[in-house]
Amino acid sequence: MAALTALLHQNPGRQFTLGELADRFGASRSSLSEDVAVIRAAVEEHGLGQIVTQPGAAGGVRFIPTLGLEAVRETIASLCRELSDPRRLVAGGYIYMTDLVFSPTWSSRLGQVFALLFSSAAPKAKGTEADYVVTVETKGIPLALMTARCLGLPLVVARRDLRVTEGSSVTMNYVSGSTGRIQTMSLPRRSLPSGARVLVVDDFMRAGSTARGLRDLLGEFGARVLAVGILTASAVPVEKLVDDYLALTVLQGIDERRRLVSVIPGPAVVGLGA
Amino acid sequence: MAALTALLHQNPGRQFTLGELADRFGASRSSLSEDVAVIRAAVEEHGLGQIVTQPGAAGGVRFIPTLGLEAVRETIASLCRELSDPRRLVAGGYIYMTDLVFSPTWSSRLGQVFALLFSSAAPKAKGTEADYVVTVETKGIPLALMTARCLGLPLVVARRDLRVTEGSSVTMNYVSGSTGRIQTMSLPRRSLPSGARVLVVDDFMRAGSTARGLRDLLGEFGARVLAVGILTASAVPVEKLVDDYLALTVLQGIDERRRLVSVIPGPAVVGLGA
Repeated sequence: MAALTALLHQNPGRQFTLGELADRFGASRSSLSEDVAVIRAAVEEHGLGQIVTQPGAAGGVRFIPTLGLEAVRETIASLCRELSDPRRLVAGGYIYMTDLVFSPTWSSRLGQVFALLFSSAAPKAKGTEADYVVTVETKGIPLALMTARCLGLPLVVARRDLRVTEGSSVTMNYVSGSTGRIQTMSLPRRSLPSGARVLVVDDFMRAGSTARGLRDLLGEFGARVLAVGILTASAVPVEKLVDDYLALTVLQGIDERRRLVSVIPGPAVVGLGA
Repeated sequence: MAALTALLHQNPGRQFTLGELADRFGASRSSLSEDVAVIRAAVEEHGLGQIVTQPGAAGGVRFIPTLGLEAVRETIASLCRELSDPRRLVAGGYIYMTDLVFSPTWSSRLGQVFALLFSSAAPKAKGTEADYVVTVETKGIPLALMTARCLGLPLVVARRDLRVTEGSSVTMNYVSGSTGRIQTMSLPRRSLPSGARVLVVDDFMRAGSTARGLRDLLGEFGARVLAVGILTASAVPVEKLVDDYLALTVLQGIDERRRLVSVIPGPAVVGLGA
């Protein structure tokens, strides 16, 4: 049973058929079914994830390492405390978030939170309908990777410049809402098939011009954006260039002189389970 | 036992004391010790990782999800087959590796391979002595993140340009061996404490100028590079700018006209267990 739990955990989102597991562990299907039931009860009781079983010939069992509601709220509350720490203030009125977004521990937990939000955002089960997770380099990559890992999906990363190693690419220029400068992003032709359904994950949103640019770029591939997940959205400007996004936290304000930072849980998290 | 396995897997590299586990699961320490022994036997038998227990008051139990030797060889062999696929050829004699390096499945398995190589490279237990995993953006990030996750270490990412959001940074110019052009990389001052011991992970090495530049940049922080892990090293030039690196695969050659690509397992993998 320990080996089965370990195997499911090391391959999150991947479906194993009972036959495959029976071969691997030299156990009968019926005893495996019982083991799966015990594992499901155990991981769900301790808020460690969900075991999803699908009946029938094409069915099987897979593990989605989402967190329980309470664990999500605790994670986001402690993230807000971390981000509100005045020692994170950087000259110019910015918050240093680099260590958090690149941390394996944080990115892995926050990936689980995104996976839960995407799965529970209306229309139902968006997360499980998606084909890809997409982000723009650089700081969104760990979060997007861990989200994709949770959901068992591949990750596609839009680049800031054209790379000779990526073959023919589609490139788009857009105007950054925060700097007013022209920015570029590009996606290799072969990175996405036509008509893919994607989930977008990024670390920060101010005006939403990057998210909007990415949506337009994805439009060139005939891709449909099912949902946009953002680690921290700035409270201003209130009006963003994209309508619909799920923010884990909201940066309410920075008072550089008095060294005050206020980061609070985002509406997507506050509304969970309500 | 399933919940305990799940908890250890979701927190790779993190040490749990028996007291902490006893509180969490409402079980006695002695029954937990027995459970840990069963889990260790199970995950080791199936090549799913190692359970490391440390005795004494400061001791505890942690899970390192390295692969078994056979699984490492299989993973690298199938990676070589993937990379040698002529459909990956991109105009100019490059190989398209982007989907692989950003894949959660591949990066997670290859992170396990790097963790094993770093732990077994002489001098002994380098991986467990390190304080940080370091990479340069962009394509090395998923591999480095997953390696760091396996080893329970934080990740630091050198950027190609200076970011206003990262505070004061140390920047270094170096000449790229492949393009002959001046490249820049920079690390925020606060990303690394002085005197850290680091493991470097990157996706590709041709002449080694990036790895060399990174080592020099890390030198500015008084950091010591314990080992360098590379996903694919080009066979030419034979002489690299860094002496010591562990390559998972070697790109032997590309014949663009005849559409032939040859990628073979690297010496670090071939020599494993020998």
